[in-house]
Amino acid sequence: MENFTAYNPVKLRLGKDIVHELGKSVQKIGKKVLLIYGGGSVKKNGSYDDVMGQLKSIGAEVYEYTGIQSNPLITDVDKAAELGREKNVDLLLALGGGSVLDTAKVTALTIPVDHSGWKFISGEAVAKKGIPIISVLTLAATGSEMNMFAVVQNPETKEKKSVWSPHCFPKESFMDPKYTLTVPKNYTGYGITDLVAHSLEAYFGKGGSSLADRFVYSIIAEAQEYGPQLMNDPDNYDLRAKIMLAATYALNGTTIIGKAVGDWGVHAIGHVLSVLYDVPHGASLSIVYPAWLKFQMHKLEDRISELGENLFNEPDAEKSIAMLESFFESVESPVRLQDLNIGEDKRQEIIEHLVRNKATGNVHKLKDEDYEAIVDLMYAAR
Amino acid sequence: MENFTAYNPVKLRLGKDIVHELGKSVQKIGKKVLLIYGGGSVKKNGSYDDVMGQLKSIGAEVYEYTGIQSNPLITDVDKAAELGREKNVDLLLALGGGSVLDTAKVTALTIPVDHSGWKFISGEAVAKKGIPIISVLTLAATGSEMNMFAVVQNPETKEKKSVWSPHCFPKESFMDPKYTLTVPKNYTGYGITDLVAHSLEAYFGKGGSSLADRFVYSIIAEAQEYGPQLMNDPDNYDLRAKIMLAATYALNGTTIIGKAVGDWGVHAIGHVLSVLYDVPHGASLSIVYPAWLKFQMHKLEDRISELGENLFNEPDAEKSIAMLESFFESVESPVRLQDLNIGEDKRQEIIEHLVRNKATGNVHKLKDEDYEAIVDLMYAAR
Repeated sequence: MENFTAYNPVKLRLGKDIVHELGKSVQKIGKKVLLIYGGGSVKKNGSYDDVMGQLKSIGAEVYEYTGIQSNPLITDVDKAAELGREKNVDLLLALGGGSVLDTAKVTALTIPVDHSGWKFISGEAVAKKGIPIISVLTLAATGSEMNMFAVVQNPETKEKKSVWSPHCFPKESFMDPKYTLTVPKNYTGYGITDLVAHSLEAYFGKGGSSLADRFVYSIIAEAQEYGPQLMNDPDNYDLRAKIMLAATYALNGTTIIGKAVGDWGVHAIGHVLSVLYDVPHGASLSIVYPAWLKFQMHKLEDRISELGENLFNEPDAEKSIAMLESFFESVESPVRLQDLNIGEDKRQEIIEHLVRNKATGNVHKLKDEDYEAIVDLMYAAR
Repeated sequence: MENFTAYNPVKLRLGKDIVHELGKSVQKIGKKVLLIYGGGSVKKNGSYDDVMGQLKSIGAEVYEYTGIQSNPLITDVDKAAELGREKNVDLLLALGGGSVLDTAKVTALTIPVDHSGWKFISGEAVAKKGIPIISVLTLAATGSEMNMFAVVQNPETKEKKSVWSPHCFPKESFMDPKYTLTVPKNYTGYGITDLVAHSLEAYFGKGGSSLADRFVYSIIAEAQEYGPQLMNDPDNYDLRAKIMLAATYALNGTTIIGKAVGDWGVHAIGHVLSVLYDVPHGASLSIVYPAWLKFQMHKLEDRISELGENLFNEPDAEKSIAMLESFFESVESPVRLQDLNIGEDKRQEIIEHLVRNKATGNVHKLKDEDYEAIVDLMYAAR
C-alpha cells in the first residue's frame, strides 16, 4: 500500500425531488448566483424550472451563462468569468452534466484573477481561491459532481487538459435521477462507458491496494449488471439512480485509496480524439481502452488477467479484453474508430497530435514511438 | 434506493511516518493543544514520542488528559472539557483508538458549554459548535477517525450510548499502521470483528442499494482474507495497513450510500454487555451478531442467504450464520457469553438491562419480549 490522503468535502444529496432543498443551500452562501448550463436539455428534463423556482423562492439575483458544449471550451470559461466578475456573484450554480460542471469549476478559479482560466490548466498559475460552486447534475458520467478535477478544451491550441484544485470541489451536489430519464440512448451508454473507464484508470494506477481493487470490481459490476438493463429500459428511475451513484463513486476517491495515482493514459488519448473530431468523451474511451490494454499486454498481462477473472470470470487476458469490448458494445459505445466514421486517412494526424500532446499517462508511460501501434489497434479489424 | 446525503469532510492521511506532517496541520488551527490519550500503549508504540516531537517543533502549548479506558466514560469527558475550558485550548489531539477519539469528540462539544457532555448523548442538548479535533490513530477498529459518531458510557446510569454531530468530524486523521503493530492479539481480533459488524449494521439497514451491498462484501472480504493472516503474522505492516483501511471504510459512510439508516440493534445489545461486564466492544459484537441473525431468521432469511452467498458462497442462511461464527473464531473473538465466563446466572440481569436500555435497533426493531430468546441464543450450546 502507498501512503495516501483521502479528502472529499462535497456534500452529495441524491434522490427524488432533492432539488427542493436547493434554495436553503444557496441562501447559506449568498444571493447573487451565476447559473451555468448548456442548452435545451435542462428545459426539457424539468431541472431548469425546478432550479429557477428554488432561486426565486429565496429572492436570488440570477445571471445566466449558457451554451456550454459537450466538450467544454476555455473560451466559455473566460466569458463566464467575465460575467461573474462584472456582477460580483457569490456563487456558481452548475446545472447540467460534466462539461457544465467542469466549466463552472474553472470559472470559479478564474473569477478572482485577471487572466485566462487556461493558465490554471497549462500550469502557469495555481489557484489560491475559488468562488463557491453548487451543482445540480443531469447526466450520469463524469463524476465531476464529487471531485476536484476539471477538464476543458482550448480550441486555439487544440488541447484538452485537466486541472485539479481543492477550490474546484463543489460545496454541494444535488442529484435527482429523474433528470437523467431524458438523456438520449447514446449519451446514456457513453456515461456507462465513462464510469467503467474511470474505475480502470485507478485500477491500472500506481500502488497495490486490495480494497481499492474490490471497490473497482464493485462499481464495474454495477455497470455490467444494470448498464445493459438501462439501455433497454431507459425510463426506469431505479436503474438511472444506480448508474448515477456508480458514476459518482467511480471518481470520488473511493477507487484510489491506498494508491498513489491513477494512470490516465487512456483519457489523455481519448481527449485528443475529442479535440480533433468532437468525439463524445465516453465514446472515445471505449475505443481507446481495448487498444491500450492490448498494447500493454506484454507488461500488464497478470494485472489484466486479475481484472478479467474478477469481472468476467475469465483469467485469460486476451479473452477478457474481448469481453470488455463486448461490454462496451452492449451499452452501444463504439470500440473502433471506424464505428465513428473516422477513416484510416486520419491515422497520421492522430499520431502527430498524440505526440504533440504528450498523451503518456502517469504510470505505464507511453513513448512517442508507441502511438503508432495503439492507433493501429484502434483501427484493427474485429 | 432511498434518498440520502453523503458527507464526510475528514482529511484522512494513511501511511508510514505520516505523523511527520502533523505539526503543520496543528499549526494551521492553533497553538494550545489538549492531548487526550489512554495509558502506556502510546508510549510503547512510539506514537507519543512522535506526536510530542511534532508539537514541540511548532512550539505548541500542550495540556494532557490521560487515562481513557477501553469503554470510555462520560466522567472523563467532563473532566477533560473542564481542563480544555480552563486552558482555553484551540484544538483537541486524540491519540489512541476509538475510545480516545470518542472521548475527544464529546469533549469537543462540551468545552463550549456549561453542562455535562451527557446532555448531548441523552438528547437533552444539541451541539451548535465544537473545538476542532485532529486524531492520531493507534488501533484499527471503530472507524471513529473518519465519522461523526461517538459512543460513551455513563457509569452512574449504566448506559452506553451514541451521539452524532457534524462538529464531531475530526479535521484530519493521521494513521500510521506501524503504531498498530504492538496491539495485543485479542484486541487485534476484536478490531477485525468490529469492522465486520459495522459493515453488517449497514447491510441490515433500511433501503436497498446494490452498490452499498457490494462495498460491504468488499470490506468484509478484506477481513476474511487478511484478518486470519494478521492473527498469525501480527508484525506484518502491510496486513496491519489493510485492516486499518478496511476498518475506516466500514464506518465512514461508504457502506450506507443509497440507504436511509443502518440497523444498529446488535451494537445496542453489545453496549449493554460492555457496561455490565466491561466486555471489549468487538468481543461483544461477535457474541451478539450470530444470536441476532438467528433470531431474525424468520424475517430476514432471504437477506441472510444473499449475504451468505456473497461472503461464503453459501446460500443456506443457517449454514452461513455458522460460517460467520467460524470467521469470528478464526480471529479469536468470542461467540458465546460463556467464552467470556459470563455464566447463565447473569441471564436475567442482561434481559432486564436490554429492556431498560431499549436496545431495539432502528429497522428490524426488537420488542421487550424478544430479548429473552436472543440472550438464550448467546448462551446456546454450539
